Amino acid sequence: MLKNDQLESWDRENFFHPSTHLAEFARGNVPQRVVTGGKGCHIEDRDGNRLLDAFAGLYCVNVGYGRPEIAEAIAEQAKEIAYYHAYVGHGTEASITLAKMVLDRAPSNMSKVYFGLSGSDANETNIKLVWYYNNILDRPEKKKIISRWRGYHGSGLMTGSLTGLAAFQQKFDLPLDRVIHTEAPYYFRRDDLSMSEAEFVAHCASELEALIEREGADTIAAMIGEPALGTGGLVPPPAGYWQAIQEVLDKHDILLIADEVVTGFGRLGTMFGSEHYGIRPDVITIAKGLTSAYAPLSGSILSDKVWKVLEEGTDKFGPIGHGWTYSAHPIGAAAGVANLRLLDELNLVSNAGSVGAHFKAALTDALGDHPNVGDIRGEGLLCAVEFVENRDGRVFFDPARTMGAKVNAALLARGVISRAMPQGDILGFAPPFCLTESEAEEIASKLKDAVAEVLG
Amino acid sequence: MLKNDQLESWDRENFFHPSTHLAEFARGNVPQRVVTGGKGCHIEDRDGNRLLDAFAGLYCVNVGYGRPEIAEAIAEQAKEIAYYHAYVGHGTEASITLAKMVLDRAPSNMSKVYFGLSGSDANETNIKLVWYYNNILDRPEKKKIISRWRGYHGSGLMTGSLTGLAAFQQKFDLPLDRVIHTEAPYYFRRDDLSMSEAEFVAHCASELEALIEREGADTIAAMIGEPALGTGGLVPPPAGYWQAIQEVLDKHDILLIADEVVTGFGRLGTMFGSEHYGIRPDVITIAKGLTSAYAPLSGSILSDKVWKVLEEGTDKFGPIGHGWTYSAHPIGAAAGVANLRLLDELNLVSNAGSVGAHFKAALTDALGDHPNVGDIRGEGLLCAVEFVENRDGRVFFDPARTMGAKVNAALLARGVISRAMPQGDILGFAPPFCLTESEAEEIASKLKDAVAEVLG
Repeated sequence: MLKNDQLESWDRENFFHPSTHLAEFARGNVPQRVVTGGKGCHIEDRDGNRLLDAFAGLYCVNVGYGRPEIAEAIAEQAKEIAYYHAYVGHGTEASITLAKMVLDRAPSNMSKVYFGLSGSDANETNIKLVWYYNNILDRPEKKKIISRWRGYHGSGLMTGSLTGLAAFQQKFDLPLDRVIHTEAPYYFRRDDLSMSEAEFVAHCASELEALIEREGADTIAAMIGEPALGTGGLVPPPAGYWQAIQEVLDKHDILLIADEVVTGFGRLGTMFGSEHYGIRPDVITIAKGLTSAYAPLSGSILSDKVWKVLEEGTDKFGPIGHGWTYSAHPIGAAAGVANLRLLDELNLVSNAGSVGAHFKAALTDALGDHPNVGDIRGEGLLCAVEFVENRDGRVFFDPARTMGAKVNAALLARGVISRAMPQGDILGFAPPFCLTESEAEEIASKLKDAVAEVLG
Repeated sequence: MLKNDQLESWDRENFFHPSTHLAEFARGNVPQRVVTGGKGCHIEDRDGNRLLDAFAGLYCVNVGYGRPEIAEAIAEQAKEIAYYHAYVGHGTEASITLAKMVLDRAPSNMSKVYFGLSGSDANETNIKLVWYYNNILDRPEKKKIISRWRGYHGSGLMTGSLTGLAAFQQKFDLPLDRVIHTEAPYYFRRDDLSMSEAEFVAHCASELEALIEREGADTIAAMIGEPALGTGGLVPPPAGYWQAIQEVLDKHDILLIADEVVTGFGRLGTMFGSEHYGIRPDVITIAKGLTSAYAPLSGSILSDKVWKVLEEGTDKFGPIGHGWTYSAHPIGAAAGVANLRLLDELNLVSNAGSVGAHFKAALTDALGDHPNVGDIRGEGLLCAVEFVENRDGRVFFDPARTMGAKVNAALLARGVISRAMPQGDILGFAPPFCLTESEAEEIASKLKDAVAEVLG
């Protein structure tokens, strides 16, 4: 381990960090952190800090840091065969086993899994396949994709277009054509405060219906949505939302892509968010929780209905022209197999549900009465606290005051990592599933102090 | 290791393999191969076959299979810290060290590297950044990207659009808008057989110039190209090609993206193809050779000229809205560091050059006089043999006869893996850099037999 300034200067001179203020980082004004280790819910850095990571990396280290079972599976695979491609029927024991394990856990109408690397590339695959699907069905005009404002589906050109957040589109000429957005299922931020939850759900469904009618159902291929909004605010949907949405989609023969990159493999306390909310998707996107981020791996799970059309396509036009060199990479596959086993053996999905409930209660105890806390919400271990200038009339802070980021920094100073979500003064929590009740209470208590420091 | 039929049925029931005839695979008519190990230039499968892999996976296992140095680096990293994100100035010793090592090896005008996972996502990043670049420079109309027919730049929606091969676009509604294609620098396939190489180069440059004038230089942001064509046919450019092309681009203030996914880190016998051909790119795409595929990792290397504008952008608009969860993944970074060290220690880049020359000579000895061999070409360890029905007048085979695929199968039956390239009867060779002269001769000799079997 290089402990001198060498590492810092190498970093600032050579490394383009994602989602960073590039000029300020290069000038040395954004702090650098070199992560050196982790165990359970904690990480360590080379300056000797030990931090409680209440965001699990980027809500992905679901089984927690430092699991020897996964490290050993990776080491074994690297020794045996680190790489061979998966094209034209090639595979490894790990990738084939993982395919079987994924389908065993997925909703029963699911048929096959295509393995990629990231949630972004999996959604890229999904859109490509959905277009192919409608071409094979001889519906060449049925191609637009509906997404929701505040949805997050990746950071590429098409996937950043699906994403409905300004930061990922500004100055990048996004969204591209063929992507259209509808209402976010974000009850706390409804325009009309007098609406009940049920009225808001009816409003979301009728907005969707109106969009479809405006554009023409025969021009729309699919809708994509996260079971619970992720980066857009960590928002569980209002009751009955998905039933209402699906009714509209079914009526117009529009496929549903459930983006379960965040919710897949247990974050809500159930294996899939689709199961949690009674969603019946045609395609499911998976990534983070598939390997708990120990190695990159994503997937597109396809329903029998979609798969049959893809088969028909290859019968008509030959091998499908889609593939990444690192599809089903053996290291990722080995990590995935070990990770899903660990999830079962340690009963971590159920723990996410029960500790999640305890955590939400602790947050409510700590901050439920604070005049600047507008909303405390969560499902399983996906929770958020939203700050407002005034609870009465739900007056938001001026974004320029960056109150969410300030609370986030005050909490970090107390040794807890949360995430200031990009659009709103929203503090996000998505810790590893091995979080204990006492760690949950520690987060809530430190957050109370941090809020007191920043907001009084 | 599961040796029974279980693994095969799991595979066919659950696993969506890339670039595969999906229906035939599911029906059991495409053979399955489960790879279980590898050493040097050979892989092994669970049926006991040992094959000489003359395509290095998908031209990516550049240092060869079974390198304990890389496996151990991966194992160590997995034990220490398998994952933390690289957002907002975070990193690991491995990712920072690798950033430094990449820039040490890149052309001297290069400034920073953004790490992704695959060549496809790196090109996705590149296009996003090039658009951002022109928005910051207040040239909102300067956005089109020129690619070449037969270029290969990925398999996503935008990257598959850059790719100029029918198989990756058919039935996927590609290319998307803003992508335009120009002449492939493929002398053997020139339309006018009477052209000299120099005339063909002038023709390519004037085709490019005409395209730019037709579209308007102020609508064109960048041109992307592989130093030597890869999947489009493994074709080194004619002498003087890049000088002529760059003159046109410079004149019209169009950036050049060198896609070095295949050529980067030594395949042509030099560290970069840009160096090999005197290219001065603004952006370089890297992937495969960066880690020799032991773990997924890609990169976008940006010139000082581009970087300065990105810095200006974040000074004006705040943190850049781009990032993958697995950017600069520690496992990939550790593999990259160990891989680049090994490349140096074993002098593999120079070996690729010298054994490559020996290999090309062996291919020429074996097949140079065969009436169905139209072209034998190569640079370093990127070589191809192109088959024709008749050398006189360069008459190609009817593609429906799939002669390239037949020779490929006959060679595989002799224990050597090559690749039947997707557009033409072209057999591709891109073995690991540790190929020995006697292995090179073995490939040439077995190919001679395979050709004799198929073509007489």
